Amino acid sequence: MTMLKTAMIQQKSYDDSGANLFRSEGMIREAAVSGASLVIMQELHTTRYFCQSEEAKLFDLAETIPGRSTEFFSGLASELGIVLVTSLFERRAPGICHNTAVVFERDGSVAGKYRKMHIPDDPGFYEKFYFTPGDTGFNPIRTSAGVLGVLVCWDQWYPEAARLMALAGAEILIYPTAIGWDPSDSAEEQKRQLEAWVTVQRGHAVANGIPLVAVNRVGLEGSHEKDKEGIIFWGNSFAAGPQGEILARGAEDAEEIVTVDLDMGRSEEVRRIWPFLRDRRIDAYGDILKRYRD
Amino acid sequence: MTMLKTAMIQQKSYDDSGANLFRSEGMIREAAVSGASLVIMQELHTTRYFCQSEEAKLFDLAETIPGRSTEFFSGLASELGIVLVTSLFERRAPGICHNTAVVFERDGSVAGKYRKMHIPDDPGFYEKFYFTPGDTGFNPIRTSAGVLGVLVCWDQWYPEAARLMALAGAEILIYPTAIGWDPSDSAEEQKRQLEAWVTVQRGHAVANGIPLVAVNRVGLEGSHEKDKEGIIFWGNSFAAGPQGEILARGAEDAEEIVTVDLDMGRSEEVRRIWPFLRDRRIDAYGDILKRYRD
Repeated sequence: MTMLKTAMIQQKSYDDSGANLFRSEGMIREAAVSGASLVIMQELHTTRYFCQSEEAKLFDLAETIPGRSTEFFSGLASELGIVLVTSLFERRAPGICHNTAVVFERDGSVAGKYRKMHIPDDPGFYEKFYFTPGDTGFNPIRTSAGVLGVLVCWDQWYPEAARLMALAGAEILIYPTAIGWDPSDSAEEQKRQLEAWVTVQRGHAVANGIPLVAVNRVGLEGSHEKDKEGIIFWGNSFAAGPQGEILARGAEDAEEIVTVDLDMGRSEEVRRIWPFLRDRRIDAYGDILKRYRD
Repeated sequence: MTMLKTAMIQQKSYDDSGANLFRSEGMIREAAVSGASLVIMQELHTTRYFCQSEEAKLFDLAETIPGRSTEFFSGLASELGIVLVTSLFERRAPGICHNTAVVFERDGSVAGKYRKMHIPDDPGFYEKFYFTPGDTGFNPIRTSAGVLGVLVCWDQWYPEAARLMALAGAEILIYPTAIGWDPSDSAEEQKRQLEAWVTVQRGHAVANGIPLVAVNRVGLEGSHEKDKEGIIFWGNSFAAGPQGEILARGAEDAEEIVTVDLDMGRSEEVRRIWPFLRDRRIDAYGDILKRYRD
Protein backbone atom coordinates (compact mmCIF):
# COMPACT_ATOMS: atom_id res chain seq x y z
CA MET A 1 0.00 0.00 0.00
CA THR A 2 1.48 3.34 -1.06
CA MET A 3 0.09 6.01 1.23
CA LEU A 4 0.44 9.65 0.27
CA LYS A 5 0.12 11.98 3.23
CA THR A 6 -1.51 15.11 1.88
CA ALA A 7 -2.28 18.41 3.59
CA MET A 8 -4.81 21.04 2.53
CA ILE A 9 -4.10 24.56 3.74
CA GLN A 10 -7.50 26.19 4.32
CA GLN A 11 -6.91 29.87 5.20
CA LYS A 12 -8.63 33.12 5.92
CA SER A 13 -7.26 36.03 4.00
CA TYR A 14 -5.86 39.37 5.11
CA ASP A 15 -5.67 42.71 3.31
CA ASP A 16 -1.92 42.65 3.69
CA SER A 17 -0.19 40.24 1.36
CA GLY A 18 2.73 39.89 3.76
CA ALA A 19 0.37 38.72 6.49
CA ASN A 20 -1.05 36.09 4.11
CA LEU A 21 2.39 34.81 3.20
CA PHE A 22 3.41 34.69 6.86
CA ARG A 23 0.29 32.74 7.78
CA SER A 24 0.70 30.38 4.80
CA GLU A 25 4.31 29.72 5.71
CA GLY A 26 3.39 28.83 9.28
CA MET A 27 0.69 26.41 8.17
CA ILE A 28 2.87 24.83 5.47
CA ARG A 29 5.66 24.28 8.01
CA GLU A 30 3.20 22.71 10.43
CA ALA A 31 1.87 20.41 7.69
CA ALA A 32 5.40 19.34 6.77
CA VAL A 33 6.28 18.66 10.42
CA SER A 34 3.18 16.45 10.64
CA GLY A 35 4.61 14.39 7.78
CA ALA A 36 2.76 15.63 4.70
CA SER A 37 4.72 15.10 1.50
CA LEU A 38 2.11 16.87 -0.68
CA VAL A 39 0.80 20.26 0.45
CA ILE A 40 -1.95 22.09 -1.43
CA MET A 41 -2.88 25.75 -1.14
CA GLN A 42 -6.24 27.40 -1.85
CA GLU A 43 -6.85 29.50 -4.95
CA LEU A 44 -5.04 32.89 -5.10
CA HIS A 45 -3.82 32.39 -1.56
CA THR A 46 -1.35 35.29 -1.52
CA THR A 47 -4.11 37.90 -1.62
CA ARG A 48 -7.72 38.49 -0.76
CA TYR A 49 -10.14 37.36 -3.42
CA PHE A 50 -9.83 40.57 -5.43
CA CYS A 51 -12.27 39.54 -8.18
CA GLN A 52 -15.26 40.79 -6.17
CA SER A 53 -15.01 44.01 -8.20
CA GLU A 54 -13.50 45.12 -11.50
CA GLU A 55 -10.73 47.60 -10.83
CA ALA A 56 -7.86 48.22 -13.23
CA LYS A 57 -5.47 49.08 -10.40
CA LEU A 58 -5.81 45.56 -9.00
CA PHE A 59 -3.72 44.25 -11.87
CA ASP A 60 -0.85 45.54 -9.72
CA LEU A 61 -1.35 42.35 -7.68
CA ALA A 62 -0.25 40.20 -10.62
CA GLU A 63 3.31 38.97 -10.69
CA THR A 64 5.62 37.24 -13.09
CA ILE A 65 6.35 33.52 -13.00
CA PRO A 66 9.10 33.10 -11.99
CA GLY A 67 8.89 36.01 -9.59
CA ARG A 68 8.81 36.90 -5.91
CA SER A 69 6.12 34.40 -4.92
CA THR A 70 7.59 31.48 -6.83
CA GLU A 71 10.97 32.29 -5.25
CA PHE A 72 9.39 32.25 -1.81
CA PHE A 73 7.45 29.00 -2.24
CA SER A 74 10.27 27.30 -4.09
CA GLY A 75 12.53 27.97 -1.11
CA LEU A 76 9.92 26.61 1.29
CA ALA A 77 9.31 23.44 -0.78
CA SER A 78 13.03 22.80 -0.97
CA GLU A 79 13.72 23.47 2.72
CA LEU A 80 10.85 21.24 3.84
CA GLY A 81 11.26 18.59 1.13
CA ILE A 82 7.61 18.72 0.08
CA VAL A 83 5.71 18.85 -3.18
CA LEU A 84 3.79 22.13 -2.99
CA VAL A 85 0.80 23.22 -5.11
CA THR A 86 0.38 27.01 -5.19
CA SER A 87 -2.06 29.31 -6.97
CA LEU A 88 -0.92 32.70 -8.24
CA PHE A 89 -2.14 35.73 -10.21
CA GLU A 90 0.27 35.53 -13.14
CA ARG A 91 1.33 38.57 -15.13
CA ARG A 92 2.45 37.16 -18.46
CA ALA A 93 2.47 40.33 -20.57
CA PRO A 94 0.78 43.73 -20.43
CA GLY A 95 -2.89 42.87 -20.86
CA ILE A 96 -2.42 39.12 -20.46
CA CYS A 97 -2.78 37.77 -16.95
CA HIS A 98 -3.72 34.27 -15.83
CA ASN A 99 -4.99 32.41 -12.78
CA THR A 100 -2.11 29.96 -12.58
CA ALA A 101 -1.26 27.00 -10.40
CA VAL A 102 2.46 26.41 -9.95
CA VAL A 103 3.67 23.08 -8.58
CA PHE A 104 7.05 22.85 -6.87
CA GLU A 105 9.06 19.68 -6.58
CA ARG A 106 10.66 18.83 -3.24
CA ASP A 107 13.97 20.21 -4.47
CA GLY A 108 12.32 23.57 -5.10
CA SER A 109 12.26 23.27 -8.88
CA VAL A 110 9.07 24.02 -10.79
CA ALA A 111 7.48 20.66 -11.66
CA GLY A 112 4.91 22.34 -13.86
CA LYS A 113 2.20 24.93 -14.08
CA TYR A 114 -1.42 25.05 -15.13
CA ARG A 115 -3.32 28.10 -16.30
CA LYS A 116 -7.01 28.01 -15.33
CA MET A 117 -8.90 27.05 -18.48
CA HIS A 118 -12.52 27.73 -17.47
CA ILE A 119 -13.00 31.31 -16.28
CA PRO A 120 -16.18 32.22 -14.38
CA ASP A 121 -17.99 35.50 -14.36
CA ASP A 122 -20.94 36.09 -12.13
CA PRO A 123 -21.81 38.72 -9.53
CA GLY A 124 -18.92 38.92 -7.05
CA PHE A 125 -16.71 36.65 -9.15
CA TYR A 126 -15.66 38.91 -12.03
CA GLU A 127 -12.81 36.72 -13.20
CA LYS A 128 -13.24 37.30 -16.91
CA PHE A 129 -12.01 40.86 -16.30
CA TYR A 130 -8.75 39.70 -14.76
CA PHE A 131 -7.86 36.35 -16.26
CA THR A 132 -7.16 35.42 -19.84
CA PRO A 133 -8.41 31.83 -20.34
CA GLY A 134 -5.53 29.39 -19.98
CA ASP A 135 -3.63 27.94 -22.91
CA THR A 136 -1.93 25.06 -21.11
CA GLY A 137 -4.65 22.57 -21.96
CA PHE A 138 -5.46 19.82 -19.50
CA ASN A 139 -2.16 18.14 -18.78
CA PRO A 140 -1.19 16.59 -15.47
CA ILE A 141 2.07 17.47 -13.75
CA ARG A 142 4.57 14.71 -12.91
CA THR A 143 6.05 14.94 -9.42
CA SER A 144 7.71 12.69 -6.88
CA ALA A 145 4.34 12.61 -5.07
CA GLY A 146 2.53 11.28 -8.14
CA VAL A 147 1.03 12.50 -11.39
CA LEU A 148 -1.08 15.48 -10.34
CA GLY A 149 -4.17 16.55 -12.28
CA VAL A 150 -4.09 20.15 -11.10
CA LEU A 151 -7.13 22.21 -12.06
CA VAL A 152 -8.50 25.40 -10.53
CA CYS A 153 -11.91 26.25 -9.01
CA TRP A 154 -14.46 26.82 -11.84
CA ASP A 155 -12.84 23.86 -13.65
CA GLN A 156 -14.34 21.69 -10.93
CA TRP A 157 -17.79 21.94 -12.49
CA TYR A 158 -16.57 20.47 -15.81
CA PRO A 159 -16.43 16.68 -16.18
CA GLU A 160 -14.45 17.22 -19.40
CA ALA A 161 -11.51 18.70 -17.49
CA ALA A 162 -11.39 15.84 -15.00
CA ARG A 163 -11.72 13.26 -17.76
CA LEU A 164 -8.92 14.76 -19.85
CA MET A 165 -6.63 14.73 -16.83
CA ALA A 166 -7.49 11.10 -16.07
CA LEU A 167 -6.98 10.08 -19.69
CA ALA A 168 -3.53 11.67 -19.57
CA GLY A 169 -2.59 9.56 -16.56
CA ALA A 170 -3.45 11.80 -13.61
CA GLU A 171 -3.36 9.77 -10.40
CA ILE A 172 -5.18 12.41 -8.37
CA LEU A 173 -7.33 15.45 -9.13
CA ILE A 174 -6.45 18.67 -7.27
CA TYR A 175 -8.55 21.85 -7.12
CA PRO A 176 -7.33 25.03 -5.40
CA THR A 177 -10.58 26.92 -4.93
CA ALA A 178 -12.22 30.16 -3.81
CA ILE A 179 -15.93 29.61 -3.45
CA GLY A 180 -18.47 30.84 -0.97
CA TRP A 181 -21.94 32.05 -0.25
CA ASP A 182 -23.70 35.22 -1.10
CA PRO A 183 -24.97 36.24 2.37
CA SER A 184 -28.26 37.28 0.82
CA ASP A 185 -29.09 33.75 -0.31
CA SER A 186 -31.44 31.63 1.79
CA ALA A 187 -30.07 28.92 4.07
CA GLU A 188 -31.63 26.29 1.78
CA GLU A 189 -29.95 27.73 -1.31
CA GLN A 190 -26.63 27.94 0.53
CA LYS A 191 -26.90 24.30 1.56
CA ARG A 192 -27.73 23.21 -2.01
CA GLN A 193 -24.77 25.12 -3.40
CA LEU A 194 -22.26 23.69 -0.93
CA GLU A 195 -23.50 20.15 -1.45
CA ALA A 196 -23.56 20.57 -5.23
CA TRP A 197 -19.93 21.67 -5.10
CA VAL A 198 -18.92 18.65 -3.04
CA THR A 199 -21.08 16.27 -5.07
CA VAL A 200 -19.97 17.19 -8.58
CA GLN A 201 -16.33 16.75 -7.56
CA ARG A 202 -16.98 13.44 -5.81
CA GLY A 203 -18.62 12.48 -9.10
CA HIS A 204 -15.38 13.21 -10.99
CA ALA A 205 -13.53 10.90 -8.59
CA VAL A 206 -16.10 8.15 -9.23
CA ALA A 207 -16.23 8.57 -13.00
CA ASN A 208 -12.46 8.41 -13.28
CA GLY A 209 -11.60 6.07 -10.43
CA ILE A 210 -9.03 8.38 -8.85
CA PRO A 211 -8.88 10.37 -5.60
CA LEU A 212 -9.59 14.07 -5.50
CA VAL A 213 -8.58 16.95 -3.24
CA ALA A 214 -10.27 20.36 -3.16
CA VAL A 215 -8.83 23.19 -1.06
CA ASN A 216 -11.01 26.21 -0.39
CA ARG A 217 -10.56 29.48 1.45
CA VAL A 218 -12.67 30.30 4.48
CA GLY A 219 -14.27 33.33 6.14
CA LEU A 220 -16.03 36.51 5.12
CA GLU A 221 -14.24 38.85 2.74
CA GLY A 222 -16.09 42.15 2.45
CA SER A 223 -16.82 43.71 -0.90
CA HIS A 224 -15.45 47.11 -1.96
CA GLU A 225 -18.71 47.69 -3.81
CA LYS A 226 -21.62 49.53 -2.27
CA ASP A 227 -24.58 47.54 -0.97
CA LYS A 228 -22.68 44.26 -1.20
CA GLU A 229 -21.67 42.40 1.90
CA GLY A 230 -19.07 40.26 0.19
CA ILE A 231 -18.54 36.53 0.11
CA ILE A 232 -18.55 34.04 2.96
CA PHE A 233 -15.99 31.52 1.73
CA TRP A 234 -17.33 28.21 2.92
CA GLY A 235 -14.18 26.21 3.72
CA ASN A 236 -15.12 22.52 3.59
CA SER A 237 -11.85 21.59 1.92
CA PHE A 238 -12.08 17.86 1.38
CA ALA A 239 -10.52 14.71 0.00
CA ALA A 240 -12.44 11.88 -1.66
CA GLY A 241 -11.28 8.41 -2.64
CA PRO A 242 -11.70 6.82 -6.08
CA GLN A 243 -15.28 5.77 -5.28
CA GLY A 244 -16.11 9.33 -4.26
CA GLU A 245 -16.06 8.42 -0.58
CA ILE A 246 -15.23 11.35 1.70
CA LEU A 247 -11.90 10.74 3.42
CA ALA A 248 -11.46 14.09 5.15
CA ARG A 249 -13.39 17.34 5.30
CA GLY A 250 -12.47 20.66 6.85
CA ALA A 251 -14.50 23.11 8.89
CA GLU A 252 -17.00 25.49 7.36
CA ASP A 253 -15.91 28.51 9.37
CA ALA A 254 -12.32 28.13 10.56
CA GLU A 255 -8.77 27.96 9.29
CA GLU A 256 -7.54 24.40 9.26
CA ILE A 257 -4.79 22.15 8.03
CA VAL A 258 -6.81 19.20 6.77
CA THR A 259 -4.65 16.12 6.40
CA VAL A 260 -5.44 12.83 4.74
CA ASP A 261 -3.59 9.63 3.92
CA LEU A 262 -4.39 8.78 0.30
CA ASP A 263 -4.04 5.12 -0.62
CA MET A 264 -2.55 5.50 -4.08
CA GLY A 265 -2.94 1.78 -4.80
CA ARG A 266 -6.71 1.88 -4.46
CA SER A 267 -7.37 3.21 -7.97
CA GLU A 268 -5.99 0.04 -9.51
CA GLU A 269 -8.50 -2.04 -7.51
CA VAL A 270 -11.42 0.25 -8.23
CA ARG A 271 -10.75 0.42 -11.95
CA ARG A 272 -10.69 -3.39 -12.06
CA ILE A 273 -14.13 -3.76 -10.52
CA TRP A 274 -15.54 -0.71 -12.33
CA PRO A 275 -13.74 -0.56 -15.68
CA PHE A 276 -15.45 2.57 -16.96
CA LEU A 277 -12.53 3.67 -19.12
CA ARG A 278 -12.71 0.37 -21.03
CA ASP A 279 -16.20 1.02 -22.35
CA ARG A 280 -16.14 4.68 -23.38
CA ARG A 281 -17.98 5.18 -26.70
CA ILE A 282 -15.36 7.43 -28.26
CA ASP A 283 -16.97 6.73 -31.65
CA ALA A 284 -20.09 8.56 -30.47
CA TYR A 285 -18.72 11.46 -28.40
CA GLY A 286 -17.90 13.82 -31.27
CA ASP A 287 -20.60 16.38 -30.46
CA ILE A 288 -18.94 17.04 -27.08
CA LEU A 289 -16.81 19.45 -29.11
CA LYS A 290 -19.85 21.52 -30.05
CA ARG A 291 -21.11 24.52 -28.11
CA TYR A 292 -24.65 23.16 -28.40
CA ARG A 293 -26.27 20.47 -30.49
CA ASP A 294 -28.90 22.54 -32.21
CA MET B 1 -44.00 26.89 -12.01
CA THR B 2 -44.40 23.87 -14.26
CA MET B 3 -44.49 20.80 -12.05
CA LEU B 4 -44.02 17.39 -13.58
CA LYS B 5 -45.38 14.61 -11.41
CA THR B 6 -43.11 11.65 -12.02
CA ALA B 7 -43.33 8.09 -10.72
CA MET B 8 -40.53 5.53 -10.48
CA ILE B 9 -41.65 1.89 -10.48
CA GLN B 10 -39.16 0.03 -8.29
CA GLN B 11 -39.94 -3.70 -8.50
CA LYS B 12 -38.83 -7.10 -7.42
CA SER B 13 -38.65 -9.60 -10.21
CA TYR B 14 -40.25 -13.00 -10.70
CA ASP B 15 -39.18 -16.00 -12.75
CA ASP B 16 -42.43 -15.81 -14.62
CA SER B 17 -42.61 -12.98 -17.12
CA GLY B 18 -46.39 -12.87 -16.85
CA ALA B 19 -46.13 -12.26 -13.13
CA ASN B 20 -43.75 -9.38 -13.76
CA LEU B 21 -46.06 -7.80 -16.30
CA PHE B 22 -49.04 -8.20 -13.98
CA ARG B 23 -47.14 -6.56 -11.11
CA SER B 24 -45.86 -3.77 -13.36
CA GLU B 25 -49.35 -3.06 -14.65
CA GLY B 26 -50.73 -2.78 -11.14
CA MET B 27 -48.03 -0.37 -10.05
CA ILE B 28 -48.29 1.73 -13.23
CA ARG B 29 -52.06 2.02 -12.76
CA GLU B 30 -51.55 3.07 -9.15
CA ALA B 31 -48.99 5.70 -10.21
CA ALA B 32 -51.36 7.08 -12.82
CA VAL B 33 -54.23 7.23 -10.34
CA SER B 34 -51.99 9.23 -8.01
CA GLY B 35 -51.57 11.77 -10.80
CA ALA B 36 -48.21 10.92 -12.35
CA SER B 37 -47.91 12.04 -15.97
CA LEU B 38 -44.46 10.52 -16.44
CA VAL B 39 -43.89 6.91 -15.30
CA ILE B 40 -40.47 5.27 -15.48
CA MET B 41 -39.70 1.56 -15.26
CA GLN B 42 -36.50 -0.13 -14.12
CA GLU B 43 -34.07 -1.77 -16.55
CA LEU B 44 -35.27 -4.98 -18.26
CA HIS B 45 -38.37 -4.98 -16.08
CA THR B 46 -40.25 -7.72 -17.94
CA THR B 47 -37.82 -10.42 -16.81
CA ARG B 48 -35.39 -11.32 -14.10
CA TYR B 49 -31.91 -9.92 -14.61
CA PHE B 50 -30.83 -12.76 -16.90
CA CYS B 51 -27.29 -11.44 -17.50
CA GLN B 52 -25.98 -13.14 -14.36
CA SER B 53 -24.84 -15.97 -16.60
CA GLU B 54 -24.05 -16.47 -20.29
CA GLU B 55 -26.58 -18.89 -21.77
CA ALA B 56 -27.47 -18.97 -25.45
CA LYS B 57 -31.02 -20.15 -24.72
CA LEU B 58 -31.72 -16.90 -22.87
CA PHE B 59 -31.79 -15.07 -26.19
CA ASP B 60 -35.31 -16.53 -26.35
CA LEU B 61 -36.25 -13.72 -23.96
CA ALA B 62 -35.54 -11.09 -26.60
CA GLU B 63 -38.45 -9.67 -28.55
CA THR B 64 -38.99 -7.47 -31.53
CA ILE B 65 -39.82 -3.79 -31.32
CA PRO B 66 -42.67 -3.37 -32.06
CA GLY B 67 -43.74 -6.64 -30.47
CA ARG B 68 -45.80 -8.11 -27.65
CA SER B 69 -44.32 -5.92 -24.88
CA THR B 70 -44.55 -2.67 -26.80
CA GLU B 71 -48.15 -3.54 -27.66
CA PHE B 72 -48.92 -4.12 -23.99
CA PHE B 73 -47.26 -0.95 -22.68
CA SER B 74 -48.53 1.16 -25.55
CA GLY B 75 -52.06 0.18 -24.61
CA LEU B 76 -51.44 1.00 -20.96
CA ALA B 77 -49.90 4.43 -21.75
CA SER B 78 -52.82 5.26 -23.99
CA GLU B 79 -55.49 4.05 -21.59
CA LEU B 80 -53.95 5.94 -18.65
CA GLY B 81 -52.82 8.99 -20.63
CA ILE B 82 -49.25 8.85 -19.35
CA VAL B 83 -45.79 9.12 -20.86
CA LEU B 84 -44.20 5.76 -20.08
CA VAL B 85 -40.49 4.86 -20.18
CA THR B 86 -39.90 1.13 -20.59
CA SER B 87 -36.78 -1.00 -20.92
CA LEU B 88 -36.77 -4.08 -23.14
CA PHE B 89 -34.49 -6.83 -24.46
CA GLU B 90 -34.73 -6.05 -28.17
CA ARG B 91 -34.25 -8.68 -30.87
CA ARG B 92 -33.26 -6.73 -33.95
CA ALA B 93 -31.90 -9.53 -36.13
CA PRO B 94 -30.43 -12.98 -35.56
CA GLY B 95 -27.25 -12.25 -33.61
CA ILE B 96 -28.07 -8.59 -32.99
CA CYS B 97 -29.90 -7.83 -29.76
CA HIS B 98 -29.99 -4.60 -27.78
CA ASN B 99 -30.83 -3.31 -24.34
CA THR B 100 -33.41 -0.79 -25.47
CA ALA B 101 -35.51 1.85 -23.78
CA VAL B 102 -38.83 2.55 -25.50
CA VAL B 103 -40.76 5.68 -24.61
CA PHE B 104 -44.52 5.82 -25.18
CA GLU B 105 -46.46 9.02 -25.65
CA ARG B 106 -49.76 9.42 -23.78
CA ASP B 107 -51.64 8.42 -26.93
CA GLY B 108 -49.77 5.11 -26.99
CA SER B 109 -47.51 5.99 -29.90
CA VAL B 110 -43.79 5.38 -29.67
CA ALA B 111 -42.17 8.74 -28.92
CA GLY B 112 -38.71 7.30 -29.40
CA LYS B 113 -36.26 4.64 -28.38
CA TYR B 114 -32.71 4.50 -27.13
CA ARG B 115 -30.33 1.56 -27.42
CA LYS B 116 -27.92 1.33 -24.48
CA MET B 117 -24.60 2.67 -25.73
CA HIS B 118 -22.23 1.65 -22.90
CA ILE B 119 -22.36 -2.09 -22.24
CA PRO B 120 -20.87 -3.45 -18.99
CA ASP B 121 -19.24 -6.76 -18.43
CA ASP B 122 -18.14 -7.84 -15.01
CA PRO B 123 -18.82 -10.89 -12.86
CA GLY B 124 -22.60 -11.34 -12.61
CA PHE B 125 -23.28 -8.65 -15.22
CA TYR B 126 -22.33 -10.39 -18.47
CA GLU B 127 -24.05 -7.90 -20.73
CA LYS B 128 -21.49 -7.91 -23.52
CA PHE B 129 -22.66 -11.44 -24.31
CA TYR B 130 -26.27 -10.39 -24.83
CA PHE B 131 -26.28 -6.80 -26.02
CA THR B 132 -24.78 -5.28 -29.14
CA PRO B 133 -23.67 -1.75 -28.23
CA GLY B 134 -26.32 0.77 -29.25
CA ASP B 135 -26.21 2.76 -32.46
CA THR B 136 -28.79 5.39 -31.59
CA GLY B 137 -26.21 7.83 -30.27
CA PHE B 138 -27.15 10.13 -27.41
CA ASN B 139 -30.32 11.83 -28.54
CA PRO B 140 -33.13 12.91 -26.23
CA ILE B 141 -36.72 11.94 -26.91
CA ARG B 142 -39.36 14.65 -27.28
CA THR B 143 -42.60 13.97 -25.42
CA SER B 144 -45.53 15.89 -24.01
CA ALA B 145 -43.88 15.49 -20.59
CA GLY B 146 -40.69 17.19 -21.77
CA VAL B 147 -37.51 16.42 -23.66
CA LEU B 148 -36.28 13.21 -22.04
CA GLY B 149 -32.60 12.29 -21.93
CA VAL B 150 -33.17 8.55 -21.60
CA LEU B 151 -30.04 6.51 -20.90
CA VAL B 152 -29.68 3.05 -19.38
CA CYS B 153 -27.78 1.80 -16.32
CA TRP B 154 -24.03 1.57 -17.15
CA ASP B 155 -24.42 4.85 -19.09
CA GLN B 156 -24.92 6.50 -15.71
CA TRP B 157 -21.20 6.31 -14.95
CA TYR B 158 -20.32 8.33 -18.07
CA PRO B 159 -20.38 12.14 -17.86
CA GLU B 160 -20.07 12.22 -21.66
CA ALA B 161 -23.49 10.61 -22.10
CA ALA B 162 -25.20 13.04 -19.75
CA ARG B 163 -23.44 16.00 -21.34
CA LEU B 164 -24.41 14.99 -24.88
CA MET B 165 -28.04 14.67 -23.82
CA ALA B 166 -27.96 18.09 -22.16
CA LEU B 167 -26.30 19.69 -25.18
CA ALA B 168 -29.08 18.28 -27.34
CA GLY B 169 -31.71 19.93 -25.18
CA ALA B 170 -32.63 17.21 -22.68
CA GLU B 171 -34.68 18.72 -19.85
CA ILE B 172 -34.28 15.70 -17.60
CA LEU B 173 -31.94 12.71 -17.41
CA ILE B 174 -33.57 9.31 -16.95
CA TYR B 175 -31.81 6.04 -16.10
CA PRO B 176 -33.65 2.69 -15.94
CA THR B 177 -31.19 0.60 -13.93
CA ALA B 178 -30.37 -2.87 -12.59
CA ILE B 179 -27.59 -2.56 -10.06
CA GLY B 180 -26.94 -4.29 -6.78
CA TRP B 181 -24.49 -5.77 -4.36
CA ASP B 182 -22.40 -8.88 -4.49
CA PRO B 183 -23.38 -10.49 -1.15
CA SER B 184 -19.74 -11.47 -0.62
CA ASP B 185 -18.58 -7.83 -0.47
CA SER B 186 -18.03 -6.20 2.91
CA ALA B 187 -20.61 -3.81 4.34
CA GLU B 188 -18.13 -0.94 3.85
CA GLU B 189 -17.61 -1.78 0.17
CA GLN B 190 -21.37 -2.11 -0.34
CA LYS B 191 -21.92 1.33 1.20
CA ARG B 192 -19.22 2.90 -0.97
CA GLN B 193 -20.71 1.37 -4.12
CA LEU B 194 -24.25 2.55 -3.41
CA GLU B 195 -23.13 6.06 -2.54
CA ALA B 196 -20.83 6.22 -5.58
CA TRP B 197 -23.79 5.31 -7.76
CA VAL B 198 -25.98 8.02 -6.27
CA THR B 199 -23.16 10.57 -6.24
CA VAL B 200 -21.95 10.27 -9.82
CA GLN B 201 -25.51 10.73 -11.06
CA ARG B 202 -26.19 13.70 -8.79
CA GLY B 203 -22.98 15.06 -10.30
CA HIS B 204 -24.46 14.81 -13.80
CA ALA B 205 -27.47 16.81 -12.63
CA VAL B 206 -25.17 19.48 -11.21
CA ALA B 207 -22.81 19.65 -14.19
CA ASN B 208 -25.71 20.04 -16.60
CA GLY B 209 -28.20 21.95 -14.47
CA ILE B 210 -31.08 19.56 -15.09
CA PRO B 211 -33.01 17.11 -12.90
CA LEU B 212 -32.30 13.39 -12.98
CA VAL B 213 -34.30 10.26 -12.22
CA ALA B 214 -32.81 6.79 -11.70
CA VAL B 215 -35.06 3.75 -11.31
CA ASN B 216 -33.53 0.56 -9.96
CA ARG B 217 -34.82 -2.93 -9.29
CA VAL B 218 -34.85 -4.34 -5.77
CA GLY B 219 -34.38 -7.64 -3.99
CA LEU B 220 -32.20 -10.72 -4.25
CA GLU B 221 -32.13 -12.56 -7.56
CA GLY B 222 -30.29 -15.86 -7.23
CA SER B 223 -27.67 -16.94 -9.70
CA HIS B 224 -27.96 -20.05 -11.89
CA GLU B 225 -24.20 -20.48 -11.52
CA LYS B 226 -22.65 -22.70 -8.87
CA ASP B 227 -21.14 -21.09 -5.78
CA LYS B 228 -22.71 -17.75 -6.57
CA GLU B 229 -25.45 -16.33 -4.42
CA GLY B 230 -26.65 -13.84 -6.95
CA ILE B 231 -27.21 -10.10 -6.77
CA ILE B 232 -29.00 -8.08 -4.11
CA PHE B 233 -30.49 -5.26 -6.19
CA TRP B 234 -30.27 -2.24 -3.94
CA GLY B 235 -33.38 -0.24 -4.84
CA ASN B 236 -32.75 3.37 -3.83
CA SER B 237 -34.46 4.70 -6.93
CA PHE B 238 -34.13 8.46 -6.63
CA ALA B 239 -34.74 11.85 -8.17
CA ALA B 240 -32.38 14.81 -7.92
CA GLY B 241 -32.89 18.44 -8.82
CA PRO B 242 -30.62 20.54 -11.09
CA GLN B 243 -28.24 21.26 -8.20
CA GLY B 244 -28.00 17.56 -7.44
CA GLU B 245 -30.23 17.87 -4.41
CA ILE B 246 -32.10 14.67 -3.53
CA LEU B 247 -35.83 15.18 -4.04
CA ALA B 248 -37.04 11.62 -3.44
CA ARG B 249 -35.40 8.31 -2.67
CA GLY B 250 -36.87 4.83 -2.51
CA ALA B 251 -36.32 2.00 -0.08
CA GLU B 252 -33.28 -0.24 -0.19
CA ASP B 253 -35.18 -3.47 0.28
CA ALA B 254 -38.80 -3.09 -0.80
CA GLU B 255 -40.95 -2.53 -3.85
CA GLU B 256 -42.11 1.04 -4.06
CA ILE B 257 -43.72 3.59 -6.29
CA VAL B 258 -41.49 6.58 -5.66
CA THR B 259 -43.17 9.79 -6.74
CA VAL B 260 -41.73 13.26 -7.08
CA ASP B 261 -42.89 16.63 -8.32
CA LEU B 262 -40.18 17.98 -10.60
CA ASP B 263 -40.12 21.77 -10.97
CA MET B 264 -39.27 22.01 -14.66
CA GLY B 265 -38.72 25.76 -14.43
CA ARG B 266 -35.87 25.41 -11.95
CA SER B 267 -33.21 24.62 -14.58
CA GLU B 268 -33.58 28.06 -16.11
CA GLU B 269 -32.82 29.67 -12.73
CA VAL B 270 -29.93 27.36 -11.93
CA ARG B 271 -28.28 27.81 -15.32
CA ARG B 272 -28.46 31.60 -14.84
CA ILE B 273 -26.60 31.55 -11.54
CA TRP B 274 -24.24 28.74 -12.62
CA PRO B 275 -23.72 29.21 -16.37
CA PHE B 276 -21.42 26.24 -16.87
CA LEU B 277 -22.47 25.65 -20.46
CA ARG B 278 -21.38 29.20 -21.36
CA ASP B 279 -17.75 28.58 -20.47
CA ARG B 280 -17.00 25.14 -21.90
CA ARG B 281 -13.54 25.05 -23.54
CA ILE B 282 -14.61 23.21 -26.66
CA ASP B 283 -11.37 24.34 -28.30
CA ALA B 284 -9.44 22.20 -25.81
CA TYR B 285 -11.62 19.09 -25.42
CA GLY B 286 -10.47 17.24 -28.55
CA ASP B 287 -8.66 14.47 -26.71
CA ILE B 288 -11.94 13.36 -25.11
CA LEU B 289 -12.35 11.41 -28.35
CA LYS B 290 -9.23 9.36 -27.63
CA ARG B 291 -9.19 6.02 -25.84
CA TYR B 292 -6.26 7.24 -23.75
CA ARG B 293 -3.85 10.15 -24.04
CA ASP B 294 -0.59 8.23 -24.16
